[in-house]
Amino acid sequence: MGSEYSPSLRSGLPGLIFILETAFILIFYFCFSYECQSQSEDLTIYPAFQDVSVMVILGFGFLLAFLKRYGFSSTGFNLLIATLGIQWALLMEGFLFSSPSGKVKISLPSVAKATISVTAVLISAGALLGKANPIQLIWMAMVEVAAFSASRWINVQFLKVEEHTSLMHVHIFGTYFGLAASWWLYHSSLSKGVDKKKANPLSELFSMLGTLFLWMFWPSFNSVLIVDVTEKRNAISNTYYAMGVSAVAAFALSALSSRDGKIQMIHIHQATLAGGVALGFSAPFIPYPWIAMILGLLASNIAVLGSRCLEIYLNPVLKIHDTCGIHYTFGLPGLLGAIANVILFIIIKWASLSSLGYPVLIEVGSFMLTTAIGLGAGFITGFFLTFKLWKTLPASKYFDDQAYWEFPHLAHGF
Amino acid sequence: MGSEYSPSLRSGLPGLIFILETAFILIFYFCFSYECQSQSEDLTIYPAFQDVSVMVILGFGFLLAFLKRYGFSSTGFNLLIATLGIQWALLMEGFLFSSPSGKVKISLPSVAKATISVTAVLISAGALLGKANPIQLIWMAMVEVAAFSASRWINVQFLKVEEHTSLMHVHIFGTYFGLAASWWLYHSSLSKGVDKKKANPLSELFSMLGTLFLWMFWPSFNSVLIVDVTEKRNAISNTYYAMGVSAVAAFALSALSSRDGKIQMIHIHQATLAGGVALGFSAPFIPYPWIAMILGLLASNIAVLGSRCLEIYLNPVLKIHDTCGIHYTFGLPGLLGAIANVILFIIIKWASLSSLGYPVLIEVGSFMLTTAIGLGAGFITGFFLTFKLWKTLPASKYFDDQAYWEFPHLAHGF
Amino acid sequence: MGSEYSPSLRSGLPGLIFILETAFILIFYFCFSYECQSQSEDLTIYPAFQDVSVMVILGFGFLLAFLKRYGFSSTGFNLLIATLGIQWALLMEGFLFSSPSGKVKISLPSVAKATISVTAVLISAGALLGKANPIQLIWMAMVEVAAFSASRWINVQFLKVEEHTSLMHVHIFGTYFGLAASWWLYHSSLSKGVDKKKANPLSELFSMLGTLFLWMFWPSFNSVLIVDVTEKRNAISNTYYAMGVSAVAAFALSALSSRDGKIQMIHIHQATLAGGVALGFSAPFIPYPWIAMILGLLASNIAVLGSRCLEIYLNPVLKIHDTCGIHYTFGLPGLLGAIANVILFIIIKWASLSSLGYPVLIEVGSFMLTTAIGLGAGFITGFFLTFKLWKTLPASKYFDDQAYWEFPHLAHGF
Repeated sequence: MGSEYSPSLRSGLPGLIFILETAFILIFYFCFSYECQSQSEDLTIYPAFQDVSVMVILGFGFLLAFLKRYGFSSTGFNLLIATLGIQWALLMEGFLFSSPSGKVKISLPSVAKATISVTAVLISAGALLGKANPIQLIWMAMVEVAAFSASRWINVQFLKVEEHTSLMHVHIFGTYFGLAASWWLYHSSLSKGVDKKKANPLSELFSMLGTLFLWMFWPSFNSVLIVDVTEKRNAISNTYYAMGVSAVAAFALSALSSRDGKIQMIHIHQATLAGGVALGFSAPFIPYPWIAMILGLLASNIAVLGSRCLEIYLNPVLKIHDTCGIHYTFGLPGLLGAIANVILFIIIKWASLSSLGYPVLIEVGSFMLTTAIGLGAGFITGFFLTFKLWKTLPASKYFDDQAYWEFPHLAHGF
Repeated sequence: MGSEYSPSLRSGLPGLIFILETAFILIFYFCFSYECQSQSEDLTIYPAFQDVSVMVILGFGFLLAFLKRYGFSSTGFNLLIATLGIQWALLMEGFLFSSPSGKVKISLPSVAKATISVTAVLISAGALLGKANPIQLIWMAMVEVAAFSASRWINVQFLKVEEHTSLMHVHIFGTYFGLAASWWLYHSSLSKGVDKKKANPLSELFSMLGTLFLWMFWPSFNSVLIVDVTEKRNAISNTYYAMGVSAVAAFALSALSSRDGKIQMIHIHQATLAGGVALGFSAPFIPYPWIAMILGLLASNIAVLGSRCLEIYLNPVLKIHDTCGIHYTFGLPGLLGAIANVILFIIIKWASLSSLGYPVLIEVGSFMLTTAIGLGAGFITGFFLTFKLWKTLPASKYFDDQAYWEFPHLAHGF
Repeated sequence: MGSEYSPSLRSGLPGLIFILETAFILIFYFCFSYECQSQSEDLTIYPAFQDVSVMVILGFGFLLAFLKRYGFSSTGFNLLIATLGIQWALLMEGFLFSSPSGKVKISLPSVAKATISVTAVLISAGALLGKANPIQLIWMAMVEVAAFSASRWINVQFLKVEEHTSLMHVHIFGTYFGLAASWWLYHSSLSKGVDKKKANPLSELFSMLGTLFLWMFWPSFNSVLIVDVTEKRNAISNTYYAMGVSAVAAFALSALSSRDGKIQMIHIHQATLAGGVALGFSAPFIPYPWIAMILGLLASNIAVLGSRCLEIYLNPVLKIHDTCGIHYTFGLPGLLGAIANVILFIIIKWASLSSLGYPVLIEVGSFMLTTAIGLGAGFITGFFLTFKLWKTLPASKYFDDQAYWEFPHLAHGF
């Protein structure tokens, strides 16, 4: 990391994008077609699909826009890896989950599944925010989508996990993949507060905009693929109650955890969303609103406590730098949700099943498997990302739009 | 108001939030459950419900974000009191309007009703913007939701007002509650232009974003709870036409009312929305688009004239400081809508009813009752809010995020 | 253009708006009514209609907000001409396309058509951005909506073009109308880089917000009026794939076309949307996703290459100043889409038709006619707009909000 100039992306980025895009179009040409007869189901899920699309393209993009000199990259590269990742996820999904005869049929639900899968990449990108260049992000997106689809396929095929549940592993997978990858991009200077790393009130307000979009449309995220009407209604309502409680609790916990009772904006962003993450698995099955509310409360607690404690005590020891706190926003609440799901499963099935041991083992094994694949694949990918070939950025150029974007106006007075 | 330090919220805010939230969860535990069989109706209103949710969470939050040093509090506390208020409104709604046998059943329409009810609180918060701390806002939300639900119950139970109409009283109720409460928080320094009180171009642009979201989704607000297809279609269309005209007229009136023909952004924010407010009551019953358009034109006029005249002549006399002009945006257009509704009622029912006196009296009585309860409850609440116990802010700390939010960067250069 | 003061709009703007609005209300009074029996179709298209409304009101408004001192005018005047234009488009639509007996019936689909028609005006306004005052913009909106409706009527009536296709001519029409009109507002000083003309990072971020809203909801724009379920599904999916590819390609092309491999935000804004424009005509008929993807790739190429080459070589020669690059964003991709549509038409109908010459001639003639009417009407309108009567702005006051908006705070530190 000797050079203090940020390397030009001109030789690498366009070539990589064009090769991938040409490959995608060729694969689509040879292997994919629309369903001949469109079910009306396709159009029924369109509004909820749009909600999920808004979350992925706009919500995540602006959620990450809190760094004062990194707004272009946060929103722009989010669009880049989301759109590229969705195409790739469609292909992976098509090959792994379709019947082998003839061309793969794609429909709106398959695009919705691809969009949810790609959330894993966007979460991981949150940990690498400001440190990885677009070439690295694209490689990460390719590997991560493939690994997540494979993990999902193992879950569905061998552990007989339901497809919707397998998709909701996306938060856990994305987090641990991202954390493992960010270990390789760690630099000692990151533990000191770099000025550019900081937010300013305006960039935080843009981030609030993204947070609110995620908050508002999360019930669609947790319910878009559910077909049964009652389960869908429950998923929407439970997610809504859980997020309501976690938004409220975020303010209390943030004020409580600071010395002078002041609230930190970053806690609000993290903890309000934790409720929705925690509900991912169990939203359609929770029979009473109060259970969802308690889960939301716990998730919010975990997010704020994690942000206060882990960031100071654990991260420097493990040499992890998690730019936007994905561990507290998505990882820990996701684990909480997985555990809650197992407990709920035990309670609900208690009477009806003769032996609980085996199904519970499967449930637990399923999310531990996902975590393990995420950590492993992330670790390997992180190593791969450090190759000089990808025009890695020197640490002094981290968190700065000027490494990638042309500014006609030199004075960069955000 | 001697101390020049803003008191720490650490002892008050978390406690209050946790007590309320625990109480809510317990009440949900003992008294609430989902409908056993989900009607498909639930899912049919989901897109429109989302629109209303966007208005309440994002629209109001950013509409209020026009103060240059108060963006965090505007958007953040809006989220806080909206989510807390919706839970409380669900409870009030459940107890007052449900049949007494067994547990209260909640569904998506009941959440929609709660979301609309909570608009009253957000409107009142507009008058107190920058002057009330989160503890005061939470207390206000609790009292106001209860008072509004009670007022609605009286209207529905005794005056036989339709439920949808009773909900549309929300603008009038919120405005007069807020104005009465703000009388108690008046401080002589507020009449002078405080620098922090001012907007800057960027904060106004965020406010424009909120305004546009409110503008675009207002047809959903006026129609979400209507079941009859033709009435629903009319409510959507009429609201749309009225808001179109009031947006156009806002530009003309603003240019006309300034000396050099320049347009004020604040007029655009206020007057474009006035059309939607004025249509609240009568949107489903107006048979021709031109009537809606004339109402929109009148509402826009009232909003701009009110803003120009009342703010200078009336408010200082009454010792009211209405930070974001809710009186002109929601109050007066709401009254216009109520009066128009009565006139329309007389015209439509002229032939079919033998005696008009009594029903008209009921219509008039209904919105006068709402106004009276709003003013009374607001006045009492305002007095209650001045207690030192709630860590009231000294007037010198008004309109400043730094009283509540931690800024890692001290230079607050919005 | 001697005076260096920006003329007051007080005498002109309010009068013009009130005369138009009064005329509109009177025409609505005499000639328009709602459909007596509401079809449920009306409510079915409501969510997609809302998407289109968000694109027109919020998407275009913020897309144009990239000039650092012109954010109020970009978003505000966009709202003004959109709302005024939609009313006028409803009237034109009603008179030209309705059966002559009795009052014209309006429904939600007719409002959707009017909203799509008005896009032409918003595109043209992009070319004049910062140079035309609201009076000029309103006149332009009136003439352009009338001309576009007439052009559409000729296409539908004589060339037997389908109504949906005729509406999708809106991009081509708007572009060439706007370019022709902007020829008259050209000033030699515009070719030099004026400081005020520049963007700054924050205004670009607002523009990114608008771009993302346009990107996300474009599938609704291309499908809202289609009734057939399979065609609607195809239109949504094809548009989505095309825009995905053009977003990805935009990054590659922008990095490739700059010397040091840096990406220009303006390219991202323009090229990501090009895919949706190119799909306008053929979205419902494209049978395979890869065709849509290739079209998206080509459109993105054209947008970036156009932006790099035409702006430097062609525009100064033709004395055209195209503030926000509508020629590359909407015009050229629209032409590409029209040509692709003809080719697709030939391929699909090859076998089934005995003679292809005549239908192909009609298809080609139809979009050439639209272009010609657009250029002609724009040229005449541009001349008309230069009249001193409309309080034209001196070129030194271009690109500045202060010409129209009252700033309570003089220091305009965006």
